[in-house]
Amino acid sequence: MRSLRELFLGSPLPTGRLAMERLDKVRALAAFSPDALSSIAYANQEIYLGLVVAGAAGLRYSFPIALAIGGLLVVLALSYFQTIHAYPGGGGSYTVARENLGVGFGLVAAAALLIDYVLTAAVSLTAGVAAIASAFPLLWPYRTGLALLLLLLITLANLRGVRETGTLMAVPVYFFLASYLAMLAVGAGRALLEGPASFASAALPPARPVSAFLLLHTFAAGCTALTGIEAISNGVPAFRPPQSKNAGLTLLLMAFLMGTLFLGSVGLTQYFGVVAGPEETILSALAHRLLGSGWPYFLIQAALLLVLAIAANTSYADFPRLASILARDGYLPRQLSQLGDRLVFSNGILLLGGLAGLLIILFGGDTHALIPLFAVGVFLAFTLSQAGMVVHWLRQRGPGWLPKALLNGLGALTTAGTFFIVGVSKFLEGAWIVVLLLPLLVLGFLGVRRHYQQVGRALTLRGLPPSLRPLPGPRIVLPVAGVHRGVIEALRFARGLSSNITAVYVEVEPGSAEKVRQEWEEWGMGVPLVVVPSPYRSVVGPLLDYLERTDREHNDGQMATLLLPEFIPGRWWHFLLHNQTAMLIRLALLYRRHRRGRGRAIIDVPFYLE
Amino acid sequence: MRSLRELFLGSPLPTGRLAMERLDKVRALAAFSPDALSSIAYANQEIYLGLVVAGAAGLRYSFPIALAIGGLLVVLALSYFQTIHAYPGGGGSYTVARENLGVGFGLVAAAALLIDYVLTAAVSLTAGVAAIASAFPLLWPYRTGLALLLLLLITLANLRGVRETGTLMAVPVYFFLASYLAMLAVGAGRALLEGPASFASAALPPARPVSAFLLLHTFAAGCTALTGIEAISNGVPAFRPPQSKNAGLTLLLMAFLMGTLFLGSVGLTQYFGVVAGPEETILSALAHRLLGSGWPYFLIQAALLLVLAIAANTSYADFPRLASILARDGYLPRQLSQLGDRLVFSNGILLLGGLAGLLIILFGGDTHALIPLFAVGVFLAFTLSQAGMVVHWLRQRGPGWLPKALLNGLGALTTAGTFFIVGVSKFLEGAWIVVLLLPLLVLGFLGVRRHYQQVGRALTLRGLPPSLRPLPGPRIVLPVAGVHRGVIEALRFARGLSSNITAVYVEVEPGSAEKVRQEWEEWGMGVPLVVVPSPYRSVVGPLLDYLERTDREHNDGQMATLLLPEFIPGRWWHFLLHNQTAMLIRLALLYRRHRRGRGRAIIDVPFYLE
Repeated sequence: MRSLRELFLGSPLPTGRLAMERLDKVRALAAFSPDALSSIAYANQEIYLGLVVAGAAGLRYSFPIALAIGGLLVVLALSYFQTIHAYPGGGGSYTVARENLGVGFGLVAAAALLIDYVLTAAVSLTAGVAAIASAFPLLWPYRTGLALLLLLLITLANLRGVRETGTLMAVPVYFFLASYLAMLAVGAGRALLEGPASFASAALPPARPVSAFLLLHTFAAGCTALTGIEAISNGVPAFRPPQSKNAGLTLLLMAFLMGTLFLGSVGLTQYFGVVAGPEETILSALAHRLLGSGWPYFLIQAALLLVLAIAANTSYADFPRLASILARDGYLPRQLSQLGDRLVFSNGILLLGGLAGLLIILFGGDTHALIPLFAVGVFLAFTLSQAGMVVHWLRQRGPGWLPKALLNGLGALTTAGTFFIVGVSKFLEGAWIVVLLLPLLVLGFLGVRRHYQQVGRALTLRGLPPSLRPLPGPRIVLPVAGVHRGVIEALRFARGLSSNITAVYVEVEPGSAEKVRQEWEEWGMGVPLVVVPSPYRSVVGPLLDYLERTDREHNDGQMATLLLPEFIPGRWWHFLLHNQTAMLIRLALLYRRHRRGRGRAIIDVPFYLE
Repeated sequence: MRSLRELFLGSPLPTGRLAMERLDKVRALAAFSPDALSSIAYANQEIYLGLVVAGAAGLRYSFPIALAIGGLLVVLALSYFQTIHAYPGGGGSYTVARENLGVGFGLVAAAALLIDYVLTAAVSLTAGVAAIASAFPLLWPYRTGLALLLLLLITLANLRGVRETGTLMAVPVYFFLASYLAMLAVGAGRALLEGPASFASAALPPARPVSAFLLLHTFAAGCTALTGIEAISNGVPAFRPPQSKNAGLTLLLMAFLMGTLFLGSVGLTQYFGVVAGPEETILSALAHRLLGSGWPYFLIQAALLLVLAIAANTSYADFPRLASILARDGYLPRQLSQLGDRLVFSNGILLLGGLAGLLIILFGGDTHALIPLFAVGVFLAFTLSQAGMVVHWLRQRGPGWLPKALLNGLGALTTAGTFFIVGVSKFLEGAWIVVLLLPLLVLGFLGVRRHYQQVGRALTLRGLPPSLRPLPGPRIVLPVAGVHRGVIEALRFARGLSSNITAVYVEVEPGSAEKVRQEWEEWGMGVPLVVVPSPYRSVVGPLLDYLERTDREHNDGQMATLLLPEFIPGRWWHFLLHNQTAMLIRLALLYRRHRRGRGRAIIDVPFYLE
C-alpha cells in the first residue's frame, strides 16, 4: 500500500517546504489565463449549435452575438481591474461578496463558485476530448472514457502536487496562443485574398425561424466565453510586487487576447461560411478550412486539448483553496482544510475529481449537455462580486469613488442581466439543476456551521467547576464466550484496572453455562460470573439489557465499563472465520442510552493469534 | 430497520420452539421428492437438445437413452434402499464417505454436495421460469430477472422459516404428480388410437452425424434426471417409526414415480415425433401436442413451475444443514452453525441464495448452460456414497453382507462410470469449473480447520501457570487534540483507572502547542503533557512512534494503553464532519507490533454531542 502510494504520489513533504512562489507576468499569464483563453473551444461551439437550427439565416447572427459578448468582456475586464486594486490580498467573489454584502451573499457566491469550478473541470476536459476526437474520429465513441482518463491523470498529478511544474505548464499555454494567433493571421490573409463566402443555404435546412428567444438563448450559451476572467483577481498575492499593478496589466493583456481569439475565430467562421460535420466541432471545421488536413491542423487540435487540460487543472487549484477557506470558516467539513502529506489539500482535490467525474459520466461526456449548468453559476458569482464592489466604493468614498462605483455598477447590471437570460433561456435544459443546487448548498453550509457551533458549545470548558475530581474507578463488565487464554489475559488486565469486575456469560445454547462455570471456578481469580440466558440466541441484546439493568440497580450515575477481549487473527481473511461479536456490540452501543454527554466506555484488549 | 425485519421475517422465536416434526409417508414423499420428480423438466430438455443436432436420426435414440438412465435409476434406488437401513440416523454422502472412506473422501463428497445444492436451486428455478415462459413467450426475454425474483422470494420465505408450511407444500407436489400422470394417461390413450408418428425429417436438418460421443454426451446430460434420489437417505430421522422401513418404502415409491414420469414423457415425445420451437421446452411441446392450447396446457406448465420452485426450496433445507455440520466439524466458518432468531441457519440460507443468484446471473438464466456443472457434482457424491457403503458392508460382515456389498458395488461402478462420462464429455462446456472448484473447496475446508486448530492451541489454558497474577496497572497515554470538555471527561475517567497517565499533543500546525500547553496547565489535573512535532502533518504516525518509543524506554514488557476520547455526534451524517482520527489510530494499531499474543489495549471514552 505505502510503496504504491509513494510511486504515484511521491514521499511526504515537511510543512517547512510550504512557501509561496512569486510569479512574473509571463508565468502569471500562463498560470491564470488557460481557463479564460480556452473557453473559445466551447463558446464558439455553443454559438454555432444555437444558431444552426435556424439554418444559414441564423448563422449570420454569429458575429453580432460575438460582438455583444465582446462588449461584456470589456466591461468585466475593467470591473475586475478595479477589484484587483481594491483587494490586493486577493478578491475572490466569496471574499468581496461576504465583506460587502454580508455572509448570506458570500455563501451564495461560494456555492456558485464551487459549482463553477467543478463544471470548469468537466467542461474543459470534455471539450478537449471533443477537439482531439474531431481530429481522430475513431475516438469519437470513447469520449466519456477518455475524459475520465484525463481527469484521473490530472487528479493524480494534483495529489502529488504540481507546484514545481509551474514553468513547465507555461509551455503549452504559449504554444496554444502562438498557434491560434498564427491560424487567425493565416485566416485574415486568406480573407483578404479570397473574399467572403456565404453559408451554403442548401446544406442547412432551417428547422426553426430566427427569433428573439433563439438569439438570447445563443447569447447566453456564448457567454461561457467569459468564464475564467475572474481568475487573476483571486490570485493577486501570487504576483511579484508591485502586485496590483502587475496583476492589473496581466488582466488587461489576457482580456485583449481572449477578445482577439474569440472575435477572430467567430468572425472567420462566418466570413468563410464554415459549417461543421456531425462528429466535429466548429473550431475544428474552421481549422480544417484554414489549414487543410496536414500536420498544422493536427498541431492546432493538440494545442487546444493541452490548454483545455491545463484549464481543467486550474480548478484543482481554485476548488480546494475555496473549500479550505469555507472549511476554516466552519461551513464545510474540517477535513477539507487540512494539508495532506504532499502539502496540497488532498481531500478537496479528491472531492473535485469525484464530482467532475460524476458529471462527466452523468452527461455522457458531452460538453453541449453540460454548458447550461455552467454559465448560471459563473454569472451569479460575477454579479455578486460586482455588486459587492459597488458597496465597497460607496462605503470607502476614496478618491474617484463615483466613476469606480458606476463602472462596477455597470458590470453588476450587465452580468445580472446575463445571469437572468441564461437562467431563463437554459432553465429546462439543465440550469434548473444549478438553481436547485445553490440554495441546497447554502443550507448545507449553514447546517455544517450550526453543527460545529453546537459542538463548540458542548465542548466548552466554561461552566465547568474549577477543580474537577477524578471519576471513581469503574465497574467493569467482562463478557466471556468461553474460558480461554484470551479471556484470561483480558481478566488479568481488568484486575490491574479495578477491583470491581463482573464476568458475564450469555448462554445461547441451553445448558452450556455449566462447563463455563466450572472452568471459571478454577481460572476466574475470584471474579464473580453471571450467566444471562438468551432464549432468542442473540448475544448482543441480552448483554446490553444486562448492562442497563445493573446500571439502574447501582444508581450511582456511572455506567459500567465494558471490557471486550478481541481476537486479532494473523491474516485479514481469517476475520471471516470469527463472529464479529465485539464489533456488533460496539455498533449497538453507539446510539444506546447515555447520561449528560458521557457514554459507556469500552476497553478493547486484543489477543493476537499468530 | 427492526420493524422492516419483523415485517418480512417475523419476530424472533425462542430456542424451545425447536422441535423435530415427524412425517407420515404421504407428507414425506412430498417433502423429499420434488427435486427428484421435477428433474424431468431439464433432463428431457437435455436429451432433446443433445440429439436434435443429429436431426431425426438422432432423436430416434431418445427412448433408448432414457431406458439406460432408467436402468441406472433401478440400481441407485436399490443401493440407497440399503443405505437407509444401514444408516437410520441419516446417511448423507458426507457421513457415509467420511465414516467408511476417511475424512478426505468425506470432504470431497461434502464439496460435491454443496456445489450440487447450489446448482439444484439455480437449475430448478431457471427450468421453472423456462416452463412458464414457454406458455407465455412474452416473458422469454426476462428469464434471468424472473428467476432472480423467485430466488429472492424463496430466500425470504426460508429466512422466515418454512417449517410450519410443510403440509401446505405437499399440495403443489401432488398437484404436479396428478396432472402429469393424467397427461401421460391421455398420451397413452391417444397413442393407442392414433398410432406412432415419426420425426419430420425435412424440418430437422442434421448438423452432425450420430456418433458414439454424441450418444454418451446426451446420456451424461440426461442423467440429471437422477438428481435428488439420495434425498430420502439424508432424512431418515424425519420419518415416523419404524423409520427405516417407512423411508425405504417411500424411496421405492418415489423411484417408481420418477421412472414412470421420465420414461413416459420421453417415450411419448418420440412416439409422436414431437419437436420444440425456438422459445419452448420439449416438455411444453409435448404438453401442447397432447393437450392442445387450452387451460389444461397452462395448468400443466403452472404445475411444473410450482414443483420446480419447491425443488429449489429443498436446497434451502439441505445446504444450510450440511454447511452447519461442516461448520460444527470446523471445516467452514463457525457462523454457519448458528441458528438465527427464526430458528433457521440464516447465514447458510443467505450464502445459498447469494451463490445461486450469482450462478443465475453468470449463466444468463439459461438451464442448458448450467447443466454441465450440475451432473458432475451429483455423480461424484453418488459414487463416494456407494463406495462408502461397500466398505461398510465389508467391515460389518453382518447377515447377507455379500449380496449387499455387491449391489452397492454395482451402484458405485455405474455411478463412477457416469461421473467419468459426464466429466469428459461435458468438460469443455463447464464441467471443468466444478473439477477445478472441488479441490479448491477441499483445500479451503482444510485451511479453515487448520486455522481453528491454531486458534484452539493459541487459546488453550494448558501450560498456563496455575496461579496468575493481575497485570500491573497500565501506563495510560491520552492523545489530546485540544483542551475541551470531551478530553477533560476522558481525563477524569483515566484518573479513576490509573495514576500513571501521560497526555500527548501531536503538533500538526507549528506553534499551536503553546495555547494547548497553557490550557492544560489549568485543566490537566497535574497530568504531564508531551508535545510531539509532526513535520508531515499526520497525527497517527507520530503518535504511534511515540508509543513505541516509550514502550522501549520503559522496558517492562508492558505496552502503554491508549485512551481515546471519541465524539459521538447526534446524527449519522455528522460523522462526516469530524476527522475519524480515533478510527484511523485503531486501524493503524491493528497490525502493529505486539508481544506474545498480547496487544495494545485501547480504551474508548465516548462523549455525546447532542
